Amino acid sequence: MERHFDQELEDLKKDLLKMGSQAEEAIFASVEALKALDSQGAKNVINRDKLIDEMENQLDEKCLDLLALRQPLAMDLRFITTVMKINTDIERIADLAVDIAQRVLELEGKPLLKPLIDIPKLTSLAQRMTKEALDAFVNKDVDLAGSVIMLDKQADQLRNLIQEELARDYMEKDPASISRAVPLLLAARHLERICDHATNIAEDVIYMLKAKVVKHHPERLKEE
Amino acid sequence: MERHFDQELEDLKKDLLKMGSQAEEAIFASVEALKALDSQGAKNVINRDKLIDEMENQLDEKCLDLLALRQPLAMDLRFITTVMKINTDIERIADLAVDIAQRVLELEGKPLLKPLIDIPKLTSLAQRMTKEALDAFVNKDVDLAGSVIMLDKQADQLRNLIQEELARDYMEKDPASISRAVPLLLAARHLERICDHATNIAEDVIYMLKAKVVKHHPERLKEE
Repeated sequence: MERHFDQELEDLKKDLLKMGSQAEEAIFASVEALKALDSQGAKNVINRDKLIDEMENQLDEKCLDLLALRQPLAMDLRFITTVMKINTDIERIADLAVDIAQRVLELEGKPLLKPLIDIPKLTSLAQRMTKEALDAFVNKDVDLAGSVIMLDKQADQLRNLIQEELARDYMEKDPASISRAVPLLLAARHLERICDHATNIAEDVIYMLKAKVVKHHPERLKEE
Repeated sequence: MERHFDQELEDLKKDLLKMGSQAEEAIFASVEALKALDSQGAKNVINRDKLIDEMENQLDEKCLDLLALRQPLAMDLRFITTVMKINTDIERIADLAVDIAQRVLELEGKPLLKPLIDIPKLTSLAQRMTKEALDAFVNKDVDLAGSVIMLDKQADQLRNLIQEELARDYMEKDPASISRAVPLLLAARHLERICDHATNIAEDVIYMLKAKVVKHHPERLKEE
């Protein structure tokens, strides 16, 4: 029985990683579609989101079943409730990839305003933070989770840079560019929100490992 | 002992409602600050957010303690895990009020672009949806939760209206208005995201009451 329960917890971890890689793929595909203004690629991201929603629901059910049937305590309890929280964050990361894909559809038929440089940078950061937050969970790596939280400032800065450049060099100089600039500005914000969700995941990992709330108190990490 | 447990569940509900009214107040205060371009009001919203973060952490701890100590089953288990989910959504609603307050600070020293009409409308909708989603939870009212979900389309439409008007009538006509229009455009998006979180809460309430996943399947609501 104990052995079986261990296996069930291991399965949750696998499901979560599968969700995570689907979300990472969605981020990648949505930004590829943005770079190429590929409407079909954007529609694929939107259609595949149903699958991720379905996975979220199933994983949530599995967690509730385990809570009810196994009545776990201490670390196992925290592990399962953490899976539930991370599950929500991953589903919302995938939703944000859908938001980016919708920006691509808004740009349909309009030439790309500029070659994208900082948006792909922010995309790499978002993918990295998402991946590392999940790695931190799987490997119970509190240091890695801490470093993900520290990266969030970079994401904010990059988003501000993108927004300021679009306003200063495009929208203010040529009002005709506004309808092409606003979707890019929003895409940058969607990416930065993905980084926020990765940060939430990292905070939940630390909370699980330390049974101590770092959330909203990043300075507590440094105390040690 | 049973009696005591009922009381503990009742306390969770009260804590959640307290969080909810703090979040509603933050929405209200942030938009009042936006309408009046009141930087001090905006700073108050930002400062008070720490309190809501603290409340979120404490409520989460209480839920985990109850899961561990009471080993609840069936409806009680779902109730507690639903409180945990709603707790996260309320905290993020409050964060979005902080986002709006930050837009006010960005507008410091600049005259307001236009009298705000649709943004207050969207604000009322966001407050209504948040309040009704929580009422649906407290009163176990599946119909009210369903009607909250149905309101989300209105929020999307209102946000699109605001965005199109700002682009067409201001940004495209007068590039000098862009730095005053973008914060308003973003504020509308923050408000619409608050409506998304209220929708999440309503979905979780239905899920708890029906033990059936409506999430991502609003059409299932209509089947009955």
